[in-house]
Amino acid sequence: MNNTDIQPDITEIKNSRIDQVDFSNLQFGKVNADHMMYCDYIDGEWQTPKIVPYGPMEIEPSAKVFHYGQAVFEGMKAFKDENDQVWLFRPEQNFERINKSSKRLAIPEFPEDYFFASLKKLLELDKDWVKKGEGNSLYIRPFVIATENGVSASESDRYRFMIITCPAQAYYNKPIKVIFAQEYSRAADGGVGYAKAAGNYGAQFYPTKLAKAKGLDQIIWTDASSHEYLEEAGTMNIFFRVGDKLLTAPTNDRILDGVTRKSIIQLAKDNDIEVVVEKVSVKEIVNAAKSGELKEIFGAGTAATVVRVEGFEYDDVYHDLPIVDEPYGTFFKKSLQDIQYNRVEDPHGWTVKAF
Amino acid sequence: MNNTDIQPDITEIKNSRIDQVDFSNLQFGKVNADHMMYCDYIDGEWQTPKIVPYGPMEIEPSAKVFHYGQAVFEGMKAFKDENDQVWLFRPEQNFERINKSSKRLAIPEFPEDYFFASLKKLLELDKDWVKKGEGNSLYIRPFVIATENGVSASESDRYRFMIITCPAQAYYNKPIKVIFAQEYSRAADGGVGYAKAAGNYGAQFYPTKLAKAKGLDQIIWTDASSHEYLEEAGTMNIFFRVGDKLLTAPTNDRILDGVTRKSIIQLAKDNDIEVVVEKVSVKEIVNAAKSGELKEIFGAGTAATVVRVEGFEYDDVYHDLPIVDEPYGTFFKKSLQDIQYNRVEDPHGWTVKAF
Repeated sequence: MNNTDIQPDITEIKNSRIDQVDFSNLQFGKVNADHMMYCDYIDGEWQTPKIVPYGPMEIEPSAKVFHYGQAVFEGMKAFKDENDQVWLFRPEQNFERINKSSKRLAIPEFPEDYFFASLKKLLELDKDWVKKGEGNSLYIRPFVIATENGVSASESDRYRFMIITCPAQAYYNKPIKVIFAQEYSRAADGGVGYAKAAGNYGAQFYPTKLAKAKGLDQIIWTDASSHEYLEEAGTMNIFFRVGDKLLTAPTNDRILDGVTRKSIIQLAKDNDIEVVVEKVSVKEIVNAAKSGELKEIFGAGTAATVVRVEGFEYDDVYHDLPIVDEPYGTFFKKSLQDIQYNRVEDPHGWTVKAF
Repeated sequence: MNNTDIQPDITEIKNSRIDQVDFSNLQFGKVNADHMMYCDYIDGEWQTPKIVPYGPMEIEPSAKVFHYGQAVFEGMKAFKDENDQVWLFRPEQNFERINKSSKRLAIPEFPEDYFFASLKKLLELDKDWVKKGEGNSLYIRPFVIATENGVSASESDRYRFMIITCPAQAYYNKPIKVIFAQEYSRAADGGVGYAKAAGNYGAQFYPTKLAKAKGLDQIIWTDASSHEYLEEAGTMNIFFRVGDKLLTAPTNDRILDGVTRKSIIQLAKDNDIEVVVEKVSVKEIVNAAKSGELKEIFGAGTAATVVRVEGFEYDDVYHDLPIVDEPYGTFFKKSLQDIQYNRVEDPHGWTVKAF
């Protein structure tokens, strides 16, 4: 983490809520740790970050975030190793990406030193909320919202940058069934699909609800123009193993440049797994499923880490995926977690001590 | 308005703020009338609507609206005639559309009687905020936000439906310059472009900022796949007059089904103006501009009513539009306002007495 002169103003909690929490039975994202950070952008300047007890805030109903979805977010995790040290995984990637998202949404960029000084302090205060053990982490949610009051459709002149955290177990604890999108779309060329823009997520809820009604868990989005190419899963990037090759779509302005995705591509290269980053056609994957060459599909994202897809629906036909020996998905998940929990050497310098 | 047994719970203001407002110098959307309505969706039911003094509300930072943009809105206006009666313009259209938008965003639909009973009461309480005179109105902003606390990317189980209002003068008071989109896009096929989804608006701010830096005011969005067809302007639908024909794009899943748009199409038919609702190609409009056949472009929307476009940029060339005698835009604006202010007969039954 960078050294910085900026120090957040801190108001500590009087009594921790930690004893009221059942850490063996957490619903993802529902419980917040004791503190949160906020930092307001007023008169063209980010003010001093403040760390305060987590809780409700006052906001006017005319605040632009409610009307125009001018909001972006990030997802990160902190991990605790066996020596009670707390680690972040490639946090500079999330910092860079929230500013990339902000730029696309006409939100002013956040200073790097404000971000890391606040995050570090927040994790130090709430270190007891980061639990040891496989699958346990503290999920970190930085986000920015437009707070100017006024219902005219133009960018806000006030913003609030916040960091809230939630203790987390594994996000998806069982394999999922997916459907390849043929009717609905997630993102347009020239749109905001590559950004973690709030509106990208709300737009997926209805098609996902329809998929769930059919017994499927998630949608693999395809390109909006032709629905011929597989892109991403909305909360995860997506990988296909055909024979021994690992395929994933290149990033473009519709696809999120996922940190887990790029880490898996690197791990594949490190381990002599052939990885092909090229457009993945629906036709190719359906044919590979039919011929038996399609060995695995898995999703990759911060919340989910790696999640196995057990089958997919396309053109009203459901294709079961085989259960293979030594799946890539399991290998990448273990390799990532070994690094994240500081159990192995970290040749790429991905982990950063939180404080 | 429908009769209904539902009556909102009302808490009236103690002292009106109306005397502090300069009604001759209003910035659009910045001043709110004394009261607002809210209605919470809890445990699968819309609760009793409440009318309270306009002001800030408490909301948790983990509320889904901040993270996933699960939010929709509407724009309507109330007009006061010379006899101090207050009128709404086709309010059932806005009611139907907010539920259409909600459906696409996986938000539960709002009951019609709750909507009209609350709106009626709100307007009655704040009737002094509706000013007489050309261009004056009370802008009405119904909206729905996802209020469940929890940062997991799935639809909320709690919502808040709100109505806030703002006294308004004309939204754009001078003609605007536009640019035809060639790089950025507003909406994907199979996306949420036809809905008044919050995220559709935030996504336009950055490209619009770039346009403004070039001295242009607004973007006319084109289809995301080819950028060959002119669609809508983000806060307005768009009309082109070539010779004496009026052209506008048909609605599709990328284009908002505007109330002003459909009213103008009807008024054109009523007045023997030939209106062609077909895909409008960029090429056709650029060629018509070159040949002098392009007489007018104007935007149409509730906030703006009708706004003249004085020129457009495409392929780095700026095309000035002529100033014609008896422009269609002026005719439609006057015809609409005559109906809205109850100055003429209303053959289609578009106006509805507010209370």
